[in-house]
Formats: sequence, C-alpha cells, structure tokens
Amino acid sequence: MEYEDASPEVRAVYDDIMATRKIDQINNFWKALASHPPTLRRTWESLKEVMAPGALDPLTKEMVYLAVSVTNSCEYCIASHSAAARKAGMTEEMFGELMGVVGMANETNRLVNGYRVPVDERFKR
Amino acid sequence: MEYEDASPEVRAVYDDIMATRKIDQINNFWKALASHPPTLRRTWESLKEVMAPGALDPLTKEMVYLAVSVTNSCEYCIASHSAAARKAGMTEEMFGELMGVVGMANETNRLVNGYRVPVDERFKR
Amino acid sequence: MEYEDASPEVRAVYDDIMATRKIDQINNFWKALASHPPTLRRTWESLKEVMAPGALDPLTKEMVYLAVSVTNSCEYCIASHSAAARKAGMTEEMFGELMGVVGMANETNRLVNGYRVPVDERFKR
Amino acid sequence: MEYEDASPEVRAVYDDIMATRKIDQINNFWKALASHPPTLRRTWESLKEVMAPGALDPLTKEMVYLAVSVTNSCEYCIASHSAAARKAGMTEEMFGELMGVVGMANETNRLVNGYRVPVDERFKR
Amino acid sequence: MEYEDASPEVRAVYDDIMATRKIDQINNFWKALASHPPTLRRTWESLKEVMAPGALDPLTKEMVYLAVSVTNSCEYCIASHSAAARKAGMTEEMFGELMGVVGMANETNRLVNGYRVPVDERFKR
Amino acid sequence: MEYEDASPEVRAVYDDIMATRKIDQINNFWKALASHPPTLRRTWESLKEVMAPGALDPLTKEMVYLAVSVTNSCEYCIASHSAAARKAGMTEEMFGELMGVVGMANETNRLVNGYRVPVDERFKR
Repeated sequence: MEYEDASPEVRAVYDDIMATRKIDQINNFWKALASHPPTLRRTWESLKEVMAPGALDPLTKEMVYLAVSVTNSCEYCIASHSAAARKAGMTEEMFGELMGVVGMANETNRLVNGYRVPVDERFKR
Repeated sequence: MEYEDASPEVRAVYDDIMATRKIDQINNFWKALASHPPTLRRTWESLKEVMAPGALDPLTKEMVYLAVSVTNSCEYCIASHSAAARKAGMTEEMFGELMGVVGMANETNRLVNGYRVPVDERFKR
Repeated sequence: MEYEDASPEVRAVYDDIMATRKIDQINNFWKALASHPPTLRRTWESLKEVMAPGALDPLTKEMVYLAVSVTNSCEYCIASHSAAARKAGMTEEMFGELMGVVGMANETNRLVNGYRVPVDERFKR
Repeated sequence: MEYEDASPEVRAVYDDIMATRKIDQINNFWKALASHPPTLRRTWESLKEVMAPGALDPLTKEMVYLAVSVTNSCEYCIASHSAAARKAGMTEEMFGELMGVVGMANETNRLVNGYRVPVDERFKR
Repeated sequence: MEYEDASPEVRAVYDDIMATRKIDQINNFWKALASHPPTLRRTWESLKEVMAPGALDPLTKEMVYLAVSVTNSCEYCIASHSAAARKAGMTEEMFGELMGVVGMANETNRLVNGYRVPVDERFKR
Repeated sequence: MEYEDASPEVRAVYDDIMATRKIDQINNFWKALASHPPTLRRTWESLKEVMAPGALDPLTKEMVYLAVSVTNSCEYCIASHSAAARKAGMTEEMFGELMGVVGMANETNRLVNGYRVPVDERFKR
C-alpha cells in the first residue's frame, strides 16, 4: 500500500517510520503489513522500542537480527538487515566473522542434539 | 569421556581448550564429541578460530551464538552460552534487550513469509 | 508430469484429486511427486484423509496448514494454501489476525527458550 | 519473580493478565519475563491484542498457536497452549485432527523443497 | 494406551507393528498416537511403507531419519532412531561421521543464506 | 570472486577444491565465501574432511546432506547437493525413497512434540 492510497492511521505509522529512521521511503515490508493496520501499528511500535539504542548499541542489534534471519532462511530479512547493518557500520570483515559464528552455532547446536549432551551441573538453573 | 580415560589425541584437545579458555574443567559437550576424535579436533579448531577476538569482540560473538541457539531451541547451547556471555560481560539488561531483538526477528521473519513480501529493488544484489 | 504422459496409476490419483477437490487442473506439487508414484499415492491418501471435514472445519484446517507453512518458510506452500484458505472463506481481516498469532507464537516460543522457563506444575502430564 | 517481590510496573502487568484471563495465578513465562520489565509489558500488550476475539475466535487462535509451537518444538509453549486450547473447547478428537494437519503440513513442506516445485502461475502474486 | 486397554482397531495396529519389526513391546510414540486411532493407523501404514527395504537399505533410511531428527531437535526421535540405527548396524564410527555431515550441512546451509549465493546456472532446473 | 581476481590464498583453496573433486569450475558458494578468506579456507577444509570416504560412503553422505538441506529449506544447497548425489549414483527411485523418509521424519518429529511423548526407559542414556 502506497502512501498516497493509505488511510490516516497507516500514514501516521509511515510518517513515524520515516522520521525515526531518517529515511524518505517505506520498505515493502511495511507496505505489506498495511493491509492489516493493527498489525502494522503493533509491529512498528514493538520494533521501534526493541531496536532503539539501549544497553546494546544499534549495530549489535542489527547483527543479531541478521544472525536470526540467516538461521531462519528469511531471504527478505537477510537482504534488508544486511543493508541496515552495513549502514550502522558493519564492515565486510565483521560480516565475515558474524557468518562464521552463525555457521558454527548452527553446526554445534546439532552436534549437541545428536550426541544428546546433558547440561553440565554448573550451567543448570 | 573423562581426561584420565582419554587417548593422547583427545587429551591434547582438552589441554588446548583449558589453556585457551583459562578454565580447568571440560564441558560435557567436548566429552561427548571425544567419542569421535576427528570431530572433536575439527570442531574445536573451528570454534577456537571463529570465537577468537577479531573485528567483532568476544561478547558480541557470544551474544550472537546465544541468539542462534535460542532460535534453534538448543537447550544445552542456551545454558552454556548464557553462562559464557555473562562471563564476557553481558548484564541482565543486555540479556533482556537481546531477547527482545531475537523475539522480534523471529516474529517479523514469519510476517515477511506470510505476506510474501518482495525484496525491495535497492536491497537486491 | 502431465496427465497425458502419466501412467494409469498416476492418472488414477490425478482423477481422485480433481474429483475430491472439484477442480480441473493438477497443481505442480502433484505433478512433481508423480515422478515417484508410491509417494504420490501415499501423500494424496494421507492429505485427503487429514483435510476432510471432521471435528475441525476445512477453513480452520487450511489456516493451520498456512500457519505451519509460514513458520517453515515454505514459499510454494504459503502460495497454494493462502489460495486454498481464501477459497474456503478466509477474509483479509482473518488473514491479518492469523499472521498476528503466527508472528507472536514465533516470538514467544523463543522468549521461552531464552529465559529457560520451566513448565508450570499444573501443565505437566 | 513472584507478585510480592515485584515492582509496581510489574504488578500492573500481572494484575492485567489475571483480570483479562480471569485467572488467579501467573504462569512461569510472565514471571521469567519480569526480569526485564519492558519486555514483559510489550509482550503482554501484544499478546493481549493478538489473542483477543476478532475475526477469528479464541479457540481457533489457540489451536494456531499450538500448531506453531509444535512445529517449533517449544515444550513449554506446547504444554501451556494445549491447556489453553482445551480450556477454550478443544476436544481430544479436535486435537487429533489438529496434529494430523500439523504433521502433514510439516511433511509436504519438505516434499515441496526436495522436489523443488515451482509456484503455479495462478498462485503467483 | 496399553495393549490390554486398547480397542480392536488399535490392537490390530499394535500387532502389525510388533510382527513387522519382530519386537514384543510397543514404543511410547504409538501408545500416544492411540488416543486418535485414525492418526495411529495412517502414521503406521505410511511409516511401514516408507521404511521398508527398497532402493535404499534400512540402515541408510534410519541414518537419514536420525539426521532429520537431529536437525529438528526432536529429543524422543533422536533417542529412538539412534537405537534403531544401531540395531540396523550403525557403528560408533559411522555415527561420528554422520554427525559430522549433519553438522556441516547445518553450517553451510546458513553460510549460503547469509552470503545470498545465487544458484549456479548448471544446477537450475 | 573469480579465479583471475583472487589472491594466492584464495586461489590455493580453489585449486584444492578442483583437484579434490576432479572438476574444473568453482561453484558460486565458494566464490561467495572468498570475500572472507578465513571462512573460505576453514569451511573447505572441514567439508573436505567430513565428506571424504570413510565408514560411510560418499553417496550416503551426499544423501544425508540433501536430507538436512531439504529440512532446512536451503534452495541453493538442495540444488547443488541433488546434483552431487546424482553424480555419486543416486537414482530417481532412491531419491523418491529418500524424500519419503525425510517427509515422514518431519511429520513424526511434530507428532512426538504435539503428543508430548516421554522417552521410553530403554532409549534413555
């Protein structure tokens, strides 16, 4: 749904996205969600809160987002959050190391399953 | 496989793990892998290389590892990498924000799928 | 595999699919499975039984199918079961709410993992 | 975090959960999230909105939640949403059919992958 | 559901399982499915057909089953199919190599995602 | 990254890949990894070790790789490992049976989750 065709409720979200992110176009993701305004509004408000700078900096958050998206095979999310992470300062070297960690985590997660490794006593809650 | 029962090949890996991580016990994960020494050696060498400080700092790497393990529902990995991330400096506040990002990424990954969002032209390669 | 090129065994399945669903074309899914007739037959018989009206109505079943396909990132399945669910009566509003539930379930599934929440006594079996 | 030890901010969420759901105990899930109050509040507000009756009835929503949790292997979520779905009216017969659909969807999602089935022209957007 | 409490329909499936597999006890999996007899019967008939010796031998099939279960983090399935694969001839060395392949496949699947690798022309259909 | 543009470090890996696999072109996967040479080298060395003939033959290993890739919905990996498995001797019949096992494993993995089946005493470690 394009800006010009959107209801005031949807436009308000689009405006807040553009203002918060200092951008002047709306990604296809938000345009798609706009077909169900409550989901658009709720998702944007949650994402805005979660991705705001806090105890973790924006670059770390974007790299974590990318790591999850890569693990879940979400092509769109990988494309958009790769761009966002690079914009936030991720270099080619950092991306290479990030993929190294993501790859090894996915590998060892399965080795743990296959070998049925019991949780060490000192890691229990 | 306990240290005292291990072959010289396995002991060499155990020794390197303890020296590299400055610890004096071997986690159940490595003891389980020791039943197939080539997998033990290869996995350790890869993990050692991937988790070494580089363009990304060790805390960021541990949090990414945790994010992947949470996405994959690997109970053992969540337990051990939560401990490792906390040892590397992750506070309760940072953990809360990390989970916020992991949760939202898992949510939006599926919204993208369900709404069949096409990749924006500017994110294409 | 097109109808005209199919063996009698495959044609019998195609005929049953078209008669059961009151349609006159065979989806690419079945044409692909036809390269291994036992898988074609078995999959169709199972699907026919599982998707038949019963204690759950066909629309509910199609929405559950879609929810699983979205969670698994199966593009083909999302496309075909979105169409099937709409044909069975899913409105845009229902789809929006469905995606809301699917998204939140994927989010909270991971929060549960990350926070390592123990099962409440009263939910145990 | 138990009610008596909770801050006013956390107590307000606990109170709203108990009032909305007409229950008098707080699940372990919310007690765990309470260690990061913003995540507790945001998750509850989203879940409350998403699970409220709307175009889909509460039972359908609970069954969809369960279907996703089963697909993701979230033990806690399966336990709690099985209970919630039964409370909302899910019979043993309905559960059996639900699992039938979830199982077949997970099976056919992979057959589609393996056979690399192209999306039918009429299902494209 | 135990044999002595089962309906004739359920007993017939139990009998066929024990006869086909030359065993004299029923696994918890089948006892659980027995609460919905159509799912019990359908699942057993499909599994019996799929796991029968054919172009692939039983050991290969059990190892593939185990590889999928490890990838999906299904604890019960890993336990039961590890046992079945060992009974069919899987040695410790074979298990070690199997896990090596499963681990690397899970790793490279994600590297492919992260690096957004386009399918080589000669692998296209 | 094409051979002619590659550094000596990257060329050495490309040369080893072509010599080991007796091929004369480099897949897009390796060309993509070449943007981070340590990941290229490490991934190739691990893959070379894991896929070498051992207690399991190369065809079995390729089919397991394919089974995991199908379960993970990795389109590129399915395309390249289907080709590799066929080259190693997988017939259409074997592929059909392989997909049958992969499909059923994905189905029963979820039935186990949904029915919350406890591990049988004799499968415990």
